Amino acid sequence: MTIDYQSLAVRGVQALSPYQPGKPIDELARELGLDPADIVKLASNENPLGPSEKALSAARDSLSELCLYPDGNGFDLKQALSTRLGVDASQITLGNGSNDVLEVITRCFADADAEVIFSQYAFAVYPLVTQAIGARGVSVPAVNWGHDLTAMADAITDRTRLIFVANPNNPTGTVHHAEAIETFLDRVPANVIVVLDEAYCEYLEGAAYPDGIELLKRYPNLIVCRTFSKAWGLAALRVGYSVSSPEIADVLNRVRQPFNVDTVALSAATAVLADEVYLQRSREVNEAGLRQLERAFDRLGLDYIPSVANFIAVDVGGNSEDVFQSLLAQGVIVRPVAGYGMPRHLRVSVGLPEQNERFVAALEQALSQVGYGG
Amino acid sequence: MTIDYQSLAVRGVQALSPYQPGKPIDELARELGLDPADIVKLASNENPLGPSEKALSAARDSLSELCLYPDGNGFDLKQALSTRLGVDASQITLGNGSNDVLEVITRCFADADAEVIFSQYAFAVYPLVTQAIGARGVSVPAVNWGHDLTAMADAITDRTRLIFVANPNNPTGTVHHAEAIETFLDRVPANVIVVLDEAYCEYLEGAAYPDGIELLKRYPNLIVCRTFSKAWGLAALRVGYSVSSPEIADVLNRVRQPFNVDTVALSAATAVLADEVYLQRSREVNEAGLRQLERAFDRLGLDYIPSVANFIAVDVGGNSEDVFQSLLAQGVIVRPVAGYGMPRHLRVSVGLPEQNERFVAALEQALSQVGYGG
Repeated sequence: MTIDYQSLAVRGVQALSPYQPGKPIDELARELGLDPADIVKLASNENPLGPSEKALSAARDSLSELCLYPDGNGFDLKQALSTRLGVDASQITLGNGSNDVLEVITRCFADADAEVIFSQYAFAVYPLVTQAIGARGVSVPAVNWGHDLTAMADAITDRTRLIFVANPNNPTGTVHHAEAIETFLDRVPANVIVVLDEAYCEYLEGAAYPDGIELLKRYPNLIVCRTFSKAWGLAALRVGYSVSSPEIADVLNRVRQPFNVDTVALSAATAVLADEVYLQRSREVNEAGLRQLERAFDRLGLDYIPSVANFIAVDVGGNSEDVFQSLLAQGVIVRPVAGYGMPRHLRVSVGLPEQNERFVAALEQALSQVGYGG
Repeated sequence: MTIDYQSLAVRGVQALSPYQPGKPIDELARELGLDPADIVKLASNENPLGPSEKALSAARDSLSELCLYPDGNGFDLKQALSTRLGVDASQITLGNGSNDVLEVITRCFADADAEVIFSQYAFAVYPLVTQAIGARGVSVPAVNWGHDLTAMADAITDRTRLIFVANPNNPTGTVHHAEAIETFLDRVPANVIVVLDEAYCEYLEGAAYPDGIELLKRYPNLIVCRTFSKAWGLAALRVGYSVSSPEIADVLNRVRQPFNVDTVALSAATAVLADEVYLQRSREVNEAGLRQLERAFDRLGLDYIPSVANFIAVDVGGNSEDVFQSLLAQGVIVRPVAGYGMPRHLRVSVGLPEQNERFVAALEQALSQVGYGG
């Protein structure tokens, strides 16, 4: 008997297309025969500063313990987060990146009969984790590239178990102010869980933006997710976390893998929380880079979506795939977002000044090659 | 409205008790006010040698890339495994420890209507991942603490989707020879997936033992899981993998998280595969330690389950909890296995000669305190 093993997979998995990550530098270098050092990658919203010295030093020290299992409870990191955020350690769930936390939440609170709501143009992981469990994903049309929170609340049915809200949103960089988020939360029934994904929140400054942690006191159905992969500069190590009520955290902690965050990751993340100078520099470099890219787009006559995060989506004036390929050939990796339904945009991560400049020059060259432009 | 958020969890999750890991050294040190350096932990089947120098050096070198996402495809590690195992890279699925691979397999091929078969006294993660998705776990009574493969094949029904076979088994250390495994596989229908968990296979030497990789050629429904956490000495970093047909690997790779193995882990695992001397030393130290522990148990008149792995389960002659507590108070951490239905046994990982000696002395003291013994 010949068996089609793909047909044995559960329903949701059969139709699943895997997440498309940014192209790794080494892969492009192999393909084009380039020196990896000559490639600029602005494709994965990574921190261009290089790691915090405090994180690096803690990571190095932890290597002596490679033979031992990690602390499955993440005691030190939870203590450090607890102090920084003013929450109890029992409210924290650690994940192998916030991707892990998002997946665990979905598996805990939704099943094949559930509906899960997210916005058009929102982070690709929401529909993926929804589909993997065979739940019905409800994608609510965006307004001005951002979440239409009114329509999202309107979309709630008896079957809705989870709502994902990314604030700021990836890949569009849009953000809602505190008032809009609170108005939305007021409309969500208490038995529907809202996941407020604040992966990029460290780049926000100012009282107008909501602080998910503060909102937890008033909305017990809220789970706030954050990550060390962006402003904290530890994407390589995979550390994210959620903050919620202790009751919800207890559920999540039953399902997460017992050693989902490794020793080096725990050590580096604990140490970087004490590096306020690094965080501040990350913000400053990002702010300057955003302005640099906006000026270049203005000069080139390209539309872009105003962003508060560490990336910006630019409308290249035509099908972005050709521009993407031309950039690749010039050793510059950015992120096409056609998979998000944005075939004219490229998402560009904010780099160091010289990286941004290199990208802008390559973009100019690409646009003249393909004949697009403002 | 007051909501019980635990009641919102999906059915399988509500009844889930989390995995109980070995007690971390730091936790015991905090509780007893001991110096961590004075504590001996033989509780998690860790490699007592300390890390391979090659792994350590590769891990150190990788730290410069902390800000960048890992290579989600694990290109270098898959190439190294491919060469070592004589399989194609497309047959490999990498996981955040083999725990991750076991969970992904279960989520891909079983759902709430499925039955999943495993043995009594088998690795605790099998029933946990089964229950988390709401499937029915079928625990087949063991024979002489090992898998009853005949009874496991007899237990297959129309609803069976997955069978877990641990060879060698944890926590009992029992093993089946190649002939028994093949006889079993011949009886399993082609549409039922068999997971052969070979986490401890590097400790086996001799032609009598099955090599799961070799069996893949004849059994397309087979998935072989292995880990870098035991003989390869990288438990801290969480790297496991499965080898299967490319078709099955393609399904698993859709569901695993895109960056489930981190950069340091990928680098160290790739490097350690070239350290054959380390692997050989791991085997030798383990073999000597097993004999040392067996002699001590014989002298103390204690029964034990003959083991081929890097741990051994000893019958302390009464309720093991008292003995466990007495050992803890003496700064020695081993693993109680009452949760596995083995209330008279303690599972002891094989340590360095002086660690084994320290454990034996503490055990002798504990036995005289509680009045057990041969």
